[in-house]
Amino acid sequence: MKGNFTFYNPTKIYFGLNSVGNLKYELDNYGPNILLAYGGGSIKKNGIYDKVMEILESKEKKVFEFKDIMPNPTLAKLLEGRSLCLENNIDLILAVGGGSVIDCAKGVSASVFVDDPWEEFWLLNKPATKAIPVGAILTMVGTGSEMNGGSVITNEEEKKKKGHVFGPNVFPRFSILDPTYTYTVSKYQMCSGIFDIFSHLMEQYFSGDDDNVSDYLIEGLMKSLINSTKLALKNPKDYEARSNIMWISTLALNTLVGLGKDQDWEVHSIEHQISAYTNCSHGMGLSVISPAYYRHIYKYGLGKFYRFAVNVFEVNPLGKSVDDVAKEGLNCLTEFIKDSDMVTNLKELGCTKDMLIKIAVSSDIEQTSYKVMTADEIYEILLESFEG
Amino acid sequence: MKGNFTFYNPTKIYFGLNSVGNLKYELDNYGPNILLAYGGGSIKKNGIYDKVMEILESKEKKVFEFKDIMPNPTLAKLLEGRSLCLENNIDLILAVGGGSVIDCAKGVSASVFVDDPWEEFWLLNKPATKAIPVGAILTMVGTGSEMNGGSVITNEEEKKKKGHVFGPNVFPRFSILDPTYTYTVSKYQMCSGIFDIFSHLMEQYFSGDDDNVSDYLIEGLMKSLINSTKLALKNPKDYEARSNIMWISTLALNTLVGLGKDQDWEVHSIEHQISAYTNCSHGMGLSVISPAYYRHIYKYGLGKFYRFAVNVFEVNPLGKSVDDVAKEGLNCLTEFIKDSDMVTNLKELGCTKDMLIKIAVSSDIEQTSYKVMTADEIYEILLESFEG
Repeated sequence: MKGNFTFYNPTKIYFGLNSVGNLKYELDNYGPNILLAYGGGSIKKNGIYDKVMEILESKEKKVFEFKDIMPNPTLAKLLEGRSLCLENNIDLILAVGGGSVIDCAKGVSASVFVDDPWEEFWLLNKPATKAIPVGAILTMVGTGSEMNGGSVITNEEEKKKKGHVFGPNVFPRFSILDPTYTYTVSKYQMCSGIFDIFSHLMEQYFSGDDDNVSDYLIEGLMKSLINSTKLALKNPKDYEARSNIMWISTLALNTLVGLGKDQDWEVHSIEHQISAYTNCSHGMGLSVISPAYYRHIYKYGLGKFYRFAVNVFEVNPLGKSVDDVAKEGLNCLTEFIKDSDMVTNLKELGCTKDMLIKIAVSSDIEQTSYKVMTADEIYEILLESFEG
Repeated sequence: MKGNFTFYNPTKIYFGLNSVGNLKYELDNYGPNILLAYGGGSIKKNGIYDKVMEILESKEKKVFEFKDIMPNPTLAKLLEGRSLCLENNIDLILAVGGGSVIDCAKGVSASVFVDDPWEEFWLLNKPATKAIPVGAILTMVGTGSEMNGGSVITNEEEKKKKGHVFGPNVFPRFSILDPTYTYTVSKYQMCSGIFDIFSHLMEQYFSGDDDNVSDYLIEGLMKSLINSTKLALKNPKDYEARSNIMWISTLALNTLVGLGKDQDWEVHSIEHQISAYTNCSHGMGLSVISPAYYRHIYKYGLGKFYRFAVNVFEVNPLGKSVDDVAKEGLNCLTEFIKDSDMVTNLKELGCTKDMLIKIAVSSDIEQTSYKVMTADEIYEILLESFEG
């Protein structure tokens, strides 16, 4: 742990079958006015909405609905939630859904007390000094938003999707994680979430050449994720597999496994712009460009890519060059993507060729990658990923 | 994650070189009266006491000293601290030291508001509903006390050393971890702490036959600990190695890596009674009995011991029986203990043969071990460990 760090994660996690029952105890900590944030209404089909409403009513809460939160939530949507909070003196924002719903809820939470959220958070990068409490009930995994203080919001006018870290005030006070709530998610969304998790782990792993405890944790999470993904693909109602995936998702982005490390995040920066142009599923955008991106940088972090191959994908290094082992590891990554039915080309995500240069020039350049990108290189990576 | 769990860990960690500088910001959150808890005075020799006092004085705090906290802190010592708190209207207990000092500080913190601490916590096992805030500055690693709500106290009269989990109210509000603060600890104490960490990981790992994310995390921490131990033995001032050991120590017992798992803790139960009779160093007591204990139980959890051998000690399983691989893993554990100059027999810890039966019959029997012990079996394990 060469780097200094501060770690503080005050989110309380209730994990497991029927853990939603804990909501009633948590609600005692907040006033009567609840903003119920959710997405397109799948929670009405699978019964989660009714269950949550029943608990809210048993506690005599006044519920204000903030619905139709879209994947890749927009600044306009955030401002709609902000108005609802201001008009109704909201005491708790209860987000029921996946990462987009929780991200939007956290964005609303932090924006109520500032004049211009986009400027203060996304442009000036300020932390939130005051926020309305957020609680989360997770129904789809991948983003890790349930146990961190971050949020990704899209400014549609500027075609810019951007992440912000608000800090501890915006961490959900509690998050309820029942693996069975993820059973009704489509296979496409399940796989998209899984690759989002895997990418979070890779973004934190592929940096630095030190011997950092965090890297050992990441390797363990990657191995566990690969094992459970195989089982969940065979049987989406395999409770143990789905529960492992759910918990790995939380741990992959609750700041723990990146402590003391430089981190990369270039793949996320590029994907955010693919999403901004195509509105594609985030995880699938990541799965498309990751192989080409890592082929471009592996020589600059050869030791780590060798270690990835051996420790995560169990490549046998005997009698092989370091370079060959590293490349074999990247081949295993590509196989994992294909075997898990993830998307492998930009065309399938709705990307057109003339978008590529716009995506390349609008992507943020991360400074702690093994190889700091140029727009030209990003363009090359996008070209290589176009037809897969 | 077959088992349900609640996870909540509100301790704020400041980690790294010169992280003590954060103390001045934390002190703003508390009133003027500080109980400064420490041990035999080593912090006066290495300059940490002066540094901390300088910061306390700069914040105009009134300092009350609670010193000479012994290894294996006693109930009598706890009651002394309790009186100091009651007499001086203490706002914050600042523990500067290793696990014994922090354990004692947490015991004091929880005991101030109850009439009979031994009865309420240790006999009736109640959580602490009210407590004086505790902050910690760690100078010796192993117990993990800096990021959990537990405490181990010895009742000298009854010759009983017992752990208690007080719950979130007694978690340190903040803990400051500067790896260089551990440099002046003797090699004996460093190695004792390292085996305490390794034992915490084994106690949580060796139970259950499920596929649990926590086990993957534990394997990663064990591998990292083995690597850094080798480097720290060569050069105790290897910052990276000592910082890794320090952070692994915290993660090994902040409740994270045991989530969703049955756990064992029989080795700790036996060792507590060895300590109660000999006042030996806790980690060395664990290192002495672990090999014999695991030889006694491995057949009942064969799959996990096989996995331990392959994933932690990198035993090559090719062409070997599962039993042979598992045994080879246990041999590697014994080698690790010997190579790290840890104690390997009870005699060296001051144990006499007539103590063995007393230790055996007074040890708690844990119900979630792969093989639930009898006093006879514990006696056998102690006999096997007597001369090493």
